[in-house]
Amino acid sequence: MKRIGVMTSGGDCPGMNAAIRSVVRTGIAHNLEVYGIEQGYKGLIDGKLKLLESKDVANMIQRGGTFLKSARCPEFKTEAGQQAAIDQLEKFGIEGLVVIGGDGSLTGARVLHEKYGIKVVGLPGSIDNDIFGTSISIGVDTALNTICRAVDMINETASSHDRTFIIEVMGRNCGYLALMSAIATGAEAAIVPEVPYNIESIINKIKTRYIEGKSRSIVIVAEGAGNAYDIGKAFQLIGGFDTRITVLGHLQRGGAPSVFDRTLATRLGSGAVKGLMEGRTGVMAGLGGREIVFTDLDIVLSNKRDLDETMIKIAEELSL
Amino acid sequence: MKRIGVMTSGGDCPGMNAAIRSVVRTGIAHNLEVYGIEQGYKGLIDGKLKLLESKDVANMIQRGGTFLKSARCPEFKTEAGQQAAIDQLEKFGIEGLVVIGGDGSLTGARVLHEKYGIKVVGLPGSIDNDIFGTSISIGVDTALNTICRAVDMINETASSHDRTFIIEVMGRNCGYLALMSAIATGAEAAIVPEVPYNIESIINKIKTRYIEGKSRSIVIVAEGAGNAYDIGKAFQLIGGFDTRITVLGHLQRGGAPSVFDRTLATRLGSGAVKGLMEGRTGVMAGLGGREIVFTDLDIVLSNKRDLDETMIKIAEELSL
Amino acid sequence: MKRIGVMTSGGDCPGMNAAIRSVVRTGIAHNLEVYGIEQGYKGLIDGKLKLLESKDVANMIQRGGTFLKSARCPEFKTEAGQQAAIDQLEKFGIEGLVVIGGDGSLTGARVLHEKYGIKVVGLPGSIDNDIFGTSISIGVDTALNTICRAVDMINETASSHDRTFIIEVMGRNCGYLALMSAIATGAEAAIVPEVPYNIESIINKIKTRYIEGKSRSIVIVAEGAGNAYDIGKAFQLIGGFDTRITVLGHLQRGGAPSVFDRTLATRLGSGAVKGLMEGRTGVMAGLGGREIVFTDLDIVLSNKRDLDETMIKIAEELSL
Amino acid sequence: MKRIGVMTSGGDCPGMNAAIRSVVRTGIAHNLEVYGIEQGYKGLIDGKLKLLESKDVANMIQRGGTFLKSARCPEFKTEAGQQAAIDQLEKFGIEGLVVIGGDGSLTGARVLHEKYGIKVVGLPGSIDNDIFGTSISIGVDTALNTICRAVDMINETASSHDRTFIIEVMGRNCGYLALMSAIATGAEAAIVPEVPYNIESIINKIKTRYIEGKSRSIVIVAEGAGNAYDIGKAFQLIGGFDTRITVLGHLQRGGAPSVFDRTLATRLGSGAVKGLMEGRTGVMAGLGGREIVFTDLDIVLSNKRDLDETMIKIAEELSL
Repeated sequence: MKRIGVMTSGGDCPGMNAAIRSVVRTGIAHNLEVYGIEQGYKGLIDGKLKLLESKDVANMIQRGGTFLKSARCPEFKTEAGQQAAIDQLEKFGIEGLVVIGGDGSLTGARVLHEKYGIKVVGLPGSIDNDIFGTSISIGVDTALNTICRAVDMINETASSHDRTFIIEVMGRNCGYLALMSAIATGAEAAIVPEVPYNIESIINKIKTRYIEGKSRSIVIVAEGAGNAYDIGKAFQLIGGFDTRITVLGHLQRGGAPSVFDRTLATRLGSGAVKGLMEGRTGVMAGLGGREIVFTDLDIVLSNKRDLDETMIKIAEELSL
Repeated sequence: MKRIGVMTSGGDCPGMNAAIRSVVRTGIAHNLEVYGIEQGYKGLIDGKLKLLESKDVANMIQRGGTFLKSARCPEFKTEAGQQAAIDQLEKFGIEGLVVIGGDGSLTGARVLHEKYGIKVVGLPGSIDNDIFGTSISIGVDTALNTICRAVDMINETASSHDRTFIIEVMGRNCGYLALMSAIATGAEAAIVPEVPYNIESIINKIKTRYIEGKSRSIVIVAEGAGNAYDIGKAFQLIGGFDTRITVLGHLQRGGAPSVFDRTLATRLGSGAVKGLMEGRTGVMAGLGGREIVFTDLDIVLSNKRDLDETMIKIAEELSL
Repeated sequence: MKRIGVMTSGGDCPGMNAAIRSVVRTGIAHNLEVYGIEQGYKGLIDGKLKLLESKDVANMIQRGGTFLKSARCPEFKTEAGQQAAIDQLEKFGIEGLVVIGGDGSLTGARVLHEKYGIKVVGLPGSIDNDIFGTSISIGVDTALNTICRAVDMINETASSHDRTFIIEVMGRNCGYLALMSAIATGAEAAIVPEVPYNIESIINKIKTRYIEGKSRSIVIVAEGAGNAYDIGKAFQLIGGFDTRITVLGHLQRGGAPSVFDRTLATRLGSGAVKGLMEGRTGVMAGLGGREIVFTDLDIVLSNKRDLDETMIKIAEELSL
Repeated sequence: MKRIGVMTSGGDCPGMNAAIRSVVRTGIAHNLEVYGIEQGYKGLIDGKLKLLESKDVANMIQRGGTFLKSARCPEFKTEAGQQAAIDQLEKFGIEGLVVIGGDGSLTGARVLHEKYGIKVVGLPGSIDNDIFGTSISIGVDTALNTICRAVDMINETASSHDRTFIIEVMGRNCGYLALMSAIATGAEAAIVPEVPYNIESIINKIKTRYIEGKSRSIVIVAEGAGNAYDIGKAFQLIGGFDTRITVLGHLQRGGAPSVFDRTLATRLGSGAVKGLMEGRTGVMAGLGGREIVFTDLDIVLSNKRDLDETMIKIAEELSL
């Protein structure tokens, strides 16, 4: 193997640049040429590939987003689009590919592997932490810290006014960000898609605590579990709370990656290149315990991560 | 003068605790007793006053929000409510009052002064920077830094996806936060209540730049100038941009105060106590140039701050 | 078991408050009374114990340091001191104890268990990450993020001036903080106690890169591996670099805990209480993979954590 | 005027990039060509000039340091060096120059103006705030916020251990950073070059407060007022305090500029270009009240800023 490619695809997340840097420098350290593919599958089809040198990824580890950019690519779902991508890989002599992204990006990687025999290793990059085959995805830790800083700040104004805040966080169909940020901020409740809830009983529980003297409350809602504005209305109507809503939005995707995400991305990027060199393909490199583990993309894409039962219980016990 | 009171009222802002601390310690340094009044005018009516000692305000300068809390108080708009407040001031022997807050809070202070002859000095506390008689209000600098950190973060994901972001910031009828954060983040446009705008011409200007190669854009909208979602729709329909909306919400009110807000609040708190001791009343202590200036509450409340024309021009010239 | 105690001891670290909060609220959720012991073993000897209620730990999860305080305690190394501590535990009816701290603190916990039969569970709290029996200690993640923010900042001024910076970080005899922060900041070299090094060869390696065009360099030194000033002198004398030194110091111990430390402390605190209730004693609760594991204090205290060989190699490969 | 140059010189500070960006874009908006000069006077002598376009300064406003770099330049103190610089200015057809930096840089600018008749406007860039002719220099606000975040963090570990911390901050011969950060963090004392002090009386004052129950103390020392280690020894020997020292070092120069510094740099950069176009030369553009004011470099360089007496008194009164 002499030449590999690396791309980021789907929603961006902090740590993608660190992962690209690691792929590039690990490759160079093992005498590979590494091509960066811009804008994911779209750029692959359009032939936007360029050789990356060590200095091209200097001062990248601390930067949020992805300097290779990302984009949607409906064409890649078509036979013609896929063929165009394959043609580009051949044209540039790319013998192996590292794809960094979420479920959609990894689905594309599986197509390249299964249908066209391209050597490909995926890396889990998604703030949602909804990817099977890794204990945590690149970007999750930074997004959680961003959310918690925001909730800590809202907590201060909530306390000053004895208010209730409904805060909607990202996560698509996954409640991980909501659950973990609720635990980490001492929120009164987390509303997640994985756990059925009764809005009235949550309101009544919080009301009891108000009567006992608690002066403010924070409820964190996963975007996949309900609409923050609807939940806020219920709190106002049923509970009579002075309620405010905040939808944190896209700032959850930004920011300099945390140390955890920088080192996770660095390890996985290094592992992906070594995996390719050892002949692995059709797999995702993830974190299992403290080791890097490779899981077949088929398994990654046909399984769903569950929320940790222990953490759900801890969230309940400690939000007294 | 032997005993004074201090309260925070209206929307909270970072630096209120620093101002309270300054009032308390300046008072003590000049042999005054300082009473903290909880929950603003509501707590005053309800008699929630307590003597504050030096140690009660230790480690307060760095904390966001207001530990004396704030609350709405419709009762204070009635004769009966005002009389109840006056009774409490007499009961506790409060000879002078420092009121920290925005327009509404200062209007209450003027009532106490004009109608009941209470000695009162107001301090401008509002992230909106809409208070006349001071070059800047307590909380504005922190809010601006919070907004800019958020926009910087969103900028990263916007750049990764070549997207347009419409970001709505606070400010009520004042465009200060929107204008200054647009300048400080290099946003492509600021939409503020003070400057008439044509949404199509903004969109066309940004479109021209896209064609010239600019890949993403940020538009900052003051909450008083339009609805971010409506503006976002226009960008999508008229401009064909891949547009996302973020309403920053109440995190703009939170956070440890910046150095500027800590020192501004400290200086104004100190100035307010000295003002009371020198016999000033019915005034607000504000910042004029580098000095503390006292302005009659009548003047403060009957004038409107304008946006700085120079800054509007700079925003236009530099967002190339 | 009806009544337990909790204390923090030794050097403080971010997340200690989160751990205390978790012990208190988990205890209350299981109908235990939880006493907070101030100033570690010193406060235990002096009888500084007080019942903690749920509200006493409200808004504690986000605060750095330890509100129960910590202190050195030479008396506890004497028989008399130990007996005084035992007497207090009896007097207050404390049936189980959670001790949060580093090696020294856990050594004290072992004495209480082995010599006096006290039921005790330890928690690893130390930014140094030198405690055996857990993949990571409470405080490490926050300290690493603090270090990296500082190094990122220094990196900017280093780049502006084409300078070399020698940055000394904490860690006692452990190079974990230095190694991981070097990886996470893209530093040119990490000097750690676990890996023998030749200062001239490091200097020559960096010099080669300067000649190739790299304009600045960052070297991170673990406090246990050498003196930053001596190393700086070598860089100046041997390498002719324009060198500056920064010893990061105690700010590494402060700051709001990261999400990782908040949730780790919360899980371990919860696990410690449940461990005590299940009859465990003489053990430390740590993180093993994604689970909580209990390890005998004897094993914890007689083993040394090693640096991960993979990470040492990654640091070398990626610092090109 | 058709072509101007811009350079940063001397110690770097946050906001230099924002100033360069403003000079470039203001120039372009007024149909000027703007050349960036790398590494200050050194790069000028060496002819390291390049035309900067609008996109070259995109995403620069939020970056610390200076992308044009800075360097010492002993050659420029010689006639030959100066002549070489003049030659380059002629060669590139530079008709006006904006120099961003501290006293040394502005001294160089004066030479160019007085001795060689070059049209030059200086901008005050220095975290020390020791430049006459502006109420505040570019970089000061960011440095103060960096210092305060560090002190807040150290405060937490100090409180946990009832310790005394001596924290040395930058500022050369100016105590501004030390005084203002002491006020903003509620430090027990600030030791500055402008105010004579007796170390024993400071220690005794703090000791009195310890006896009254205060558990920790923070003393901030300006680097120009004494050595933190010596002062720490005095605290230990005379006061018997458990004392720790932290020298904050170069992280004070780094970091994304605060909003204040971004807008100050933007305004001054814009003002400098307009000043050059109006024929101003041999002056520095600074902030006076809320307006931009131009002061002759002779006056700037022959005067010394004093510390504000009011702030010295406030620091004393509030550190109770």
